[in-house]
Amino acid sequence: MIKLNCDLGEGYGNWQLVDEAEVMPHIDMANVACGFHAGDPLTVHRTVQLAKAHGVAIGAHPSYPDLVGFGRRSMACPPEEVTAMVLYQAGALQGLCAAEETRLTYIKPHGALYHDMMGKEEVYRAILEAVRRMEQDIPLMLMATPERGRFEEVAAEYAVPLLFEAFADRRYRPDGSLTPRTEAGAVLQNAEAVVAQVKDIAAGHIVASDGKRYPLEADTICVHGDNPHGVAVIREIRKALNS
Amino acid sequence: MIKLNCDLGEGYGNWQLVDEAEVMPHIDMANVACGFHAGDPLTVHRTVQLAKAHGVAIGAHPSYPDLVGFGRRSMACPPEEVTAMVLYQAGALQGLCAAEETRLTYIKPHGALYHDMMGKEEVYRAILEAVRRMEQDIPLMLMATPERGRFEEVAAEYAVPLLFEAFADRRYRPDGSLTPRTEAGAVLQNAEAVVAQVKDIAAGHIVASDGKRYPLEADTICVHGDNPHGVAVIREIRKALNS
Amino acid sequence: MIKLNCDLGEGYGNWQLVDEAEVMPHIDMANVACGFHAGDPLTVHRTVQLAKAHGVAIGAHPSYPDLVGFGRRSMACPPEEVTAMVLYQAGALQGLCAAEETRLTYIKPHGALYHDMMGKEEVYRAILEAVRRMEQDIPLMLMATPERGRFEEVAAEYAVPLLFEAFADRRYRPDGSLTPRTEAGAVLQNAEAVVAQVKDIAAGHIVASDGKRYPLEADTICVHGDNPHGVAVIREIRKALNS
Amino acid sequence: MIKLNCDLGEGYGNWQLVDEAEVMPHIDMANVACGFHAGDPLTVHRTVQLAKAHGVAIGAHPSYPDLVGFGRRSMACPPEEVTAMVLYQAGALQGLCAAEETRLTYIKPHGALYHDMMGKEEVYRAILEAVRRMEQDIPLMLMATPERGRFEEVAAEYAVPLLFEAFADRRYRPDGSLTPRTEAGAVLQNAEAVVAQVKDIAAGHIVASDGKRYPLEADTICVHGDNPHGVAVIREIRKALNS
Repeated sequence: MIKLNCDLGEGYGNWQLVDEAEVMPHIDMANVACGFHAGDPLTVHRTVQLAKAHGVAIGAHPSYPDLVGFGRRSMACPPEEVTAMVLYQAGALQGLCAAEETRLTYIKPHGALYHDMMGKEEVYRAILEAVRRMEQDIPLMLMATPERGRFEEVAAEYAVPLLFEAFADRRYRPDGSLTPRTEAGAVLQNAEAVVAQVKDIAAGHIVASDGKRYPLEADTICVHGDNPHGVAVIREIRKALNS
Repeated sequence: MIKLNCDLGEGYGNWQLVDEAEVMPHIDMANVACGFHAGDPLTVHRTVQLAKAHGVAIGAHPSYPDLVGFGRRSMACPPEEVTAMVLYQAGALQGLCAAEETRLTYIKPHGALYHDMMGKEEVYRAILEAVRRMEQDIPLMLMATPERGRFEEVAAEYAVPLLFEAFADRRYRPDGSLTPRTEAGAVLQNAEAVVAQVKDIAAGHIVASDGKRYPLEADTICVHGDNPHGVAVIREIRKALNS
Repeated sequence: MIKLNCDLGEGYGNWQLVDEAEVMPHIDMANVACGFHAGDPLTVHRTVQLAKAHGVAIGAHPSYPDLVGFGRRSMACPPEEVTAMVLYQAGALQGLCAAEETRLTYIKPHGALYHDMMGKEEVYRAILEAVRRMEQDIPLMLMATPERGRFEEVAAEYAVPLLFEAFADRRYRPDGSLTPRTEAGAVLQNAEAVVAQVKDIAAGHIVASDGKRYPLEADTICVHGDNPHGVAVIREIRKALNS
Repeated sequence: MIKLNCDLGEGYGNWQLVDEAEVMPHIDMANVACGFHAGDPLTVHRTVQLAKAHGVAIGAHPSYPDLVGFGRRSMACPPEEVTAMVLYQAGALQGLCAAEETRLTYIKPHGALYHDMMGKEEVYRAILEAVRRMEQDIPLMLMATPERGRFEEVAAEYAVPLLFEAFADRRYRPDGSLTPRTEAGAVLQNAEAVVAQVKDIAAGHIVASDGKRYPLEADTICVHGDNPHGVAVIREIRKALNS
């Protein structure tokens, strides 16, 4: 069955977005913040403990160093700095995983680092270099795209396996890209539409903004647990996938 | 031969204290900053590369989260937060070590966290809990003290081995404690006095502020490479130990 | 009528604790975070705009530099650093006030800085030194205490006026101190008890943990708007004071 | 006489770049860091005290929030956030100025914020909006450019006066732009060449990379005091201007 991945550990000290115990039972993979956009050590440790208790796979969710901007702003870091920051953050998370006798099993960059990975080959290569040099042989998660082959070719140079994710609640365009958030209809608002899109993705396609069906290969679907509404939708999605 | 350990990786982005290539050839163990008092990922990565190139052992040098205070101010963090911050920082450093196909081989807390470890059993236990739960079975470095037995007893509960360090340039008091920095003569100012103390420590004793000799068992001696004068003194110490 | 003061502006970027528009109509004084424990510039700017729109007085709520700990942990900063950090934070807030053609009208330190001010004369004097050197002649807010005279004497040396606050929801002890949070009954849990205590304080006394009435002079009462329950209680308090 | 401006206050806690007492006697205007790329409160306070003692004008040097990158990386902040961060930082500096009974007299953005101001009208307007709303009627410092008129037109909308600065040690191109640092010869390496360019600028022109002379109107010249070599060059420049 297609797996659900969700960004977690995204509190910071006194600030916590949701009760993660509400989310964990319904997801398969937790993308855990590593301290640069969110996720102080104690918050991350608790998320790791909770993920382990629920048998949820743990992935590192590294970011540019931008706490106030929640990692959503591109920063022109040189490639060796990108490599070092991914190694640092993934290592930090692995330190907390080891304490719970578990391991991180994939890397999914966060926010602007994720977008730069998809859009700038230099950043993509810097991240692959980090994953290649990690102790663990683990995959890197990218956005599912019709240009999949191009990304696979580059990753093969680094011998890094890839995972591709689709988005449960974003409207796709016919070319397989996401409708920008600045446009109307970019985000699917009601649970029914989200559940329908999840079923489509699980079946290997999406219905784009032109109302037509296009193939999309995805290993996992990204769902949002950073607000109470999102948590409710996740439960609906899980129910639909289970039935 | 008794080993020299030195705090390194203590720059931050644009700010760098010394040219570490000047220090590495003369020391045995590098206590590498992990980002909380100093040490951004790229700085740390370079220190790790340099340490590996010189065959210098790498230890984690975790701190309270206090960049502006350089980790020198005690912060009343609950034990589980201390444990989590040590695991996070040591893991981050291990991530960068793994990228260079090396490993961290000990933990030495920094600044106020080090002093709290020596003075508050709750903090000492929280750090031991972190070291116990690490993937690696590695020792924790403490300050050599006549109360060594008391620390060993507690560490035994956690099955964590210990290393004890003495200080090359601090004047000891007859009870084995350091003369506080607020008092005159707390720090040995000239290289000859420092070299003499290093030889004493290597021989198993110190000459305290009362001019008398007292036994002191130490596995390693801490030297200071965070300023050009310190680097010059380290070269003198190495020469003396080699001869 | 006795004034209600409330800590606000305590979000940080993506993290926001409450909808402050719910709180502002019911309070008289907003203690606005200044960036060191919470309060990025944009968050603070919005709180200032909202306070001005509701005719709420604006005070600076400076803190030790401890974002992850929300300013709740004492840090042994030297007095000149405490003075500088209060001047920096109050100035930053005044910059945002000036942009809205308003001014800050008092200083109330936050968290551990507040507690150190009450407990360590060195910290109290460092804060007074900052307030004395501000452009504005504005008061410093302290905790109402039977030792009021002692604080007034020291403040007189700096020609800094004082305001004293009492707490709506904390159980007082017979000596006028607060029941520590580690003890049962430290915080009044239901709205009725809080409203009753507010009425007592407005009338110049408190009923302490021994059930007896003791005098307490206060200029203002601190209420909590950092969670939805607190906001509901504030509305009750305002209603009671108005009737 | 044309004024020399210099970035100062660019240490952070334990990290300090130069002894600023060496620089102050030779400059006219100090662009003082405000905490976002450098400049903790105590460092800034000391720089303000030193500037006042030497009769050096104080300007705010606000930055994007990027301590590890020293404010050198563009961050796509929305305009209202740029406005708020400039107001916050300038206000913080003014708070420390007021404590020394002095005032800040201009604003010069730092690093990537400066470059974005010159290159993106949205950022330029967001900064002008901040300066317009400050208590003080003070000028904004820009880079001297042949497109000066275009900048003046926009600034006139905000009634913000402008200052234009030229660079002592950067090679200009015939179009009045700077040779990018990635190209050879971008930075003038020896003191004689720098002094010659300063004299040219003071006389109203520059000699560009094509060896020809072009007019350039500048109110002030930027010199670099963040390393010992730069400090020596500043002394040479001052001597040349005085003679």
